[in-house]
Amino acid sequence: MESGWQRFRHRLHEIIFEADTWAGRAFDITLLFLIMLSVLAVILESIPSLTHSYGPVFDNIEWLFTGLFTIEYLLRIISIRQPLRYMTSFFGLVDLLAILPSYLGLFLFGAHELAAVRILRLLRIFRILKLGEYTSAASILAYSLRESRAKITVFFVAIFTLVITLGSMMYVVEGHANGFESIPLSIYWAVITITTVGYGDIVPSTAMGKFIATLIMLLGYVIIAVPTGIVAVSLTAASKKHEISTQACPNCGRQGHDPDAVHCKYCGAAL
Amino acid sequence: MESGWQRFRHRLHEIIFEADTWAGRAFDITLLFLIMLSVLAVILESIPSLTHSYGPVFDNIEWLFTGLFTIEYLLRIISIRQPLRYMTSFFGLVDLLAILPSYLGLFLFGAHELAAVRILRLLRIFRILKLGEYTSAASILAYSLRESRAKITVFFVAIFTLVITLGSMMYVVEGHANGFESIPLSIYWAVITITTVGYGDIVPSTAMGKFIATLIMLLGYVIIAVPTGIVAVSLTAASKKHEISTQACPNCGRQGHDPDAVHCKYCGAAL
Amino acid sequence: MESGWQRFRHRLHEIIFEADTWAGRAFDITLLFLIMLSVLAVILESIPSLTHSYGPVFDNIEWLFTGLFTIEYLLRIISIRQPLRYMTSFFGLVDLLAILPSYLGLFLFGAHELAAVRILRLLRIFRILKLGEYTSAASILAYSLRESRAKITVFFVAIFTLVITLGSMMYVVEGHANGFESIPLSIYWAVITITTVGYGDIVPSTAMGKFIATLIMLLGYVIIAVPTGIVAVSLTAASKKHEISTQACPNCGRQGHDPDAVHCKYCGAAL
Amino acid sequence: MESGWQRFRHRLHEIIFEADTWAGRAFDITLLFLIMLSVLAVILESIPSLTHSYGPVFDNIEWLFTGLFTIEYLLRIISIRQPLRYMTSFFGLVDLLAILPSYLGLFLFGAHELAAVRILRLLRIFRILKLGEYTSAASILAYSLRESRAKITVFFVAIFTLVITLGSMMYVVEGHANGFESIPLSIYWAVITITTVGYGDIVPSTAMGKFIATLIMLLGYVIIAVPTGIVAVSLTAASKKHEISTQACPNCGRQGHDPDAVHCKYCGAAL
Repeated sequence: MESGWQRFRHRLHEIIFEADTWAGRAFDITLLFLIMLSVLAVILESIPSLTHSYGPVFDNIEWLFTGLFTIEYLLRIISIRQPLRYMTSFFGLVDLLAILPSYLGLFLFGAHELAAVRILRLLRIFRILKLGEYTSAASILAYSLRESRAKITVFFVAIFTLVITLGSMMYVVEGHANGFESIPLSIYWAVITITTVGYGDIVPSTAMGKFIATLIMLLGYVIIAVPTGIVAVSLTAASKKHEISTQACPNCGRQGHDPDAVHCKYCGAAL
Repeated sequence: MESGWQRFRHRLHEIIFEADTWAGRAFDITLLFLIMLSVLAVILESIPSLTHSYGPVFDNIEWLFTGLFTIEYLLRIISIRQPLRYMTSFFGLVDLLAILPSYLGLFLFGAHELAAVRILRLLRIFRILKLGEYTSAASILAYSLRESRAKITVFFVAIFTLVITLGSMMYVVEGHANGFESIPLSIYWAVITITTVGYGDIVPSTAMGKFIATLIMLLGYVIIAVPTGIVAVSLTAASKKHEISTQACPNCGRQGHDPDAVHCKYCGAAL
Repeated sequence: MESGWQRFRHRLHEIIFEADTWAGRAFDITLLFLIMLSVLAVILESIPSLTHSYGPVFDNIEWLFTGLFTIEYLLRIISIRQPLRYMTSFFGLVDLLAILPSYLGLFLFGAHELAAVRILRLLRIFRILKLGEYTSAASILAYSLRESRAKITVFFVAIFTLVITLGSMMYVVEGHANGFESIPLSIYWAVITITTVGYGDIVPSTAMGKFIATLIMLLGYVIIAVPTGIVAVSLTAASKKHEISTQACPNCGRQGHDPDAVHCKYCGAAL
Repeated sequence: MESGWQRFRHRLHEIIFEADTWAGRAFDITLLFLIMLSVLAVILESIPSLTHSYGPVFDNIEWLFTGLFTIEYLLRIISIRQPLRYMTSFFGLVDLLAILPSYLGLFLFGAHELAAVRILRLLRIFRILKLGEYTSAASILAYSLRESRAKITVFFVAIFTLVITLGSMMYVVEGHANGFESIPLSIYWAVITITTVGYGDIVPSTAMGKFIATLIMLLGYVIIAVPTGIVAVSLTAASKKHEISTQACPNCGRQGHDPDAVHCKYCGAAL
């Protein structure tokens, strides 16, 4: 027979870790709301003029969130069956990292700065995004990116080889005097150019450098088309798989019917 | 029996709000033409050299358009059955906002500047764009963007989390001295980089910052592929739905059959 | 019976305007080669250091090409049945514009500068590009862009409205002092931002301006996806139409067979 | 009967050129690892501060890699049946170019700088990338780019004509005084603009120039959609071909049937 403590732990687990019950859902939404507020506080605290005027207020707010998140962290450890497994999991580490800097700041000067890590807690939003159509939308997106994994890996290997080769070429052509100070910097330029970001902090000065840059930009046209094509194709496949019911006609056995089909579109038998 | 006033109102409504009759269509096109002229006047008035030379001319032009649009606004209120509903609708508010600044400018110095709001009236162009093939093109585009809503929302939630995380990371890495003055500014930089806009007003200076920026840009390759893929897929679906929707079942009259369907998928009758 | 002059004209027409005969093809390729050389001359002449050293050489080269293209123009007029129709056609005007500036330069100082118009003759390349697989590739591309016309028009109407609205908004928010000197300039900025070009010659300075710019950039993500989706969809349709034979099975009458199909894939009858 | 030398050569060939055996695979992976290390050395050596401190270390490292790659090159020549064919092949030349600069540097001052060519050896990564799913991913990507060849060629011919025309136009409109110093430089600007790279090192100054630039950027919207559409379409086709190629006809053994095929499209036998 379950003891009171066991029942309390079980109930706590249901609220904190699950989202099926009313209380669990309320907890998740409140938590997300608190995370967003704490992120907002970190963001605002970084603005010099605001820190100057309201420094002590931000200190108080930070200790408030540190307190709340510490309580939440302890409750999670108490309520879960395998505390170590949670503590070493990705979200467990993020939860710890979110509160650690404030405590470290008491001993180590400057550690407090790392409170920005708290922003990683925002990732919890994806655990809460499990509502109606968003679930299927997110799962289709995730599925199609996962499916494209091999193609995207090959694409990135090609891109890495390309930017290293092009960067080295431009380092030799333009040289140290024109801002292409080292091969790493030239590779940085090649990435800026081929992704069409184009900051303009490093630009070719020589005629030959400009000519090569022109070719690289035009090459970028075809290159940027590749990941788009990859994702479009796997999204199409993922959407189709999701949409078309797997139902086979009991009469002719053919598949591929729309979800709203009542009769087989090939032989007319009732599905 | 309809009174003369009623008939006048009814006729006015047909001209101003509908576009089926010859007069209604003529009114819509004249109105669109006037809106474009008034927008052009606002745009030209903002050019310092022109205002300097032709200031009074622009004042007259503005009062002319204010007068015309005021009359139109009053006629709309008179002719519609539920004036309040129109006045609080989106287009009703836009119509009011287009004339208000000129009148306010008589009392409040500077309010006149807001005449730029008149530009929003340009949105009426979409109500007039209902000609032949443009209707179906616009409805396919609108339909496919609406269908992608859930996926695009998930995409933007991911992007928001990403740019906040990356922006904070760069704020810590580059710091105040290198132009990354606050987390909001670093987020602004992250958005500039990941959307491949790349103004170049803020650029990483440290080697570590440049390395992270390189990774972000390459990451941007896959990210920019996602919305394109989403829209391409839903546009394909929307186009197909549009293509196939012409065949109606002779038995139940429902549409939406696949091109290779032999039997109605709803009632099973032969197509 | 055809006179010698008629026969000469007919033969000339075949060589100059058609590309079926050996001589006609040779003429076209020689012409394309000459056009490219003349374009190269115009391009090189624009480089200050080269003009400085080889000015007279470029003058001679230009008169050489002007002479050759004048002869070609006259031969075209002589050999064609309806000279006026050719002279007022697009290519006829381009051919005339390519030789006119040199002659005008004798009387009007500076007219010579317009020789750059000669570059338009490069467009003839598309008339010569009619070889094997390139024809079908070009026709598929042209067909799919033509098919997307209505959708792309709607897209551009939306974009125009959007950049005018956003440009005006930024003009009000940032104002004259921060480089957003007039609404046209702000619209120029909005186009630079939304197309992800991002020169960086005009950038928002105020916090509010940066916030709006961030939203515009993120909006640009979805916007850039639309034309890509449109073209991808119509390219798919165009490719499919081109690939799939229109052949119907003589037995079951179903279509959609691959070009290399010998038997109906549905009933197995010989096609 | 095979002599010992023959057997040794045969075994060496298996290890160096093939990747089927355990030893061959180990050799390939070790080689790739060494290539990456040598590339890393070249990259790091280009950083001024590092060369300053560790110059002699880099010299030693470079001679180490030169020695190893020389041995590898000699072993390749010894073990292959047609040494000349290998030496004149693409990878043979790359292998030679990777070791030559170091030796030349002993006689010619500065030749050593060309060691950056060694980076090209990175291309060997594609020969080693033959593992499981990556093979099919790479072959689908390569196949679809190859299939799009004709369309991409037509696209680039159109782009070349366009940027030359637009560049010349801007040279005439903006002129030497505003940074558009020559037509080649204006073409460089046109490419920067139309590919949405947008460095911002050359920007239009006149109102007319800005207006034309705006039109070019908007045009770029449709242009960037074309290669993406091309690649997406051929990727879809390539993926489909890859998916459906598994079913072979039991009668004639030919593959490539559509997923919904009931009969072999070549011989008509039931699948």
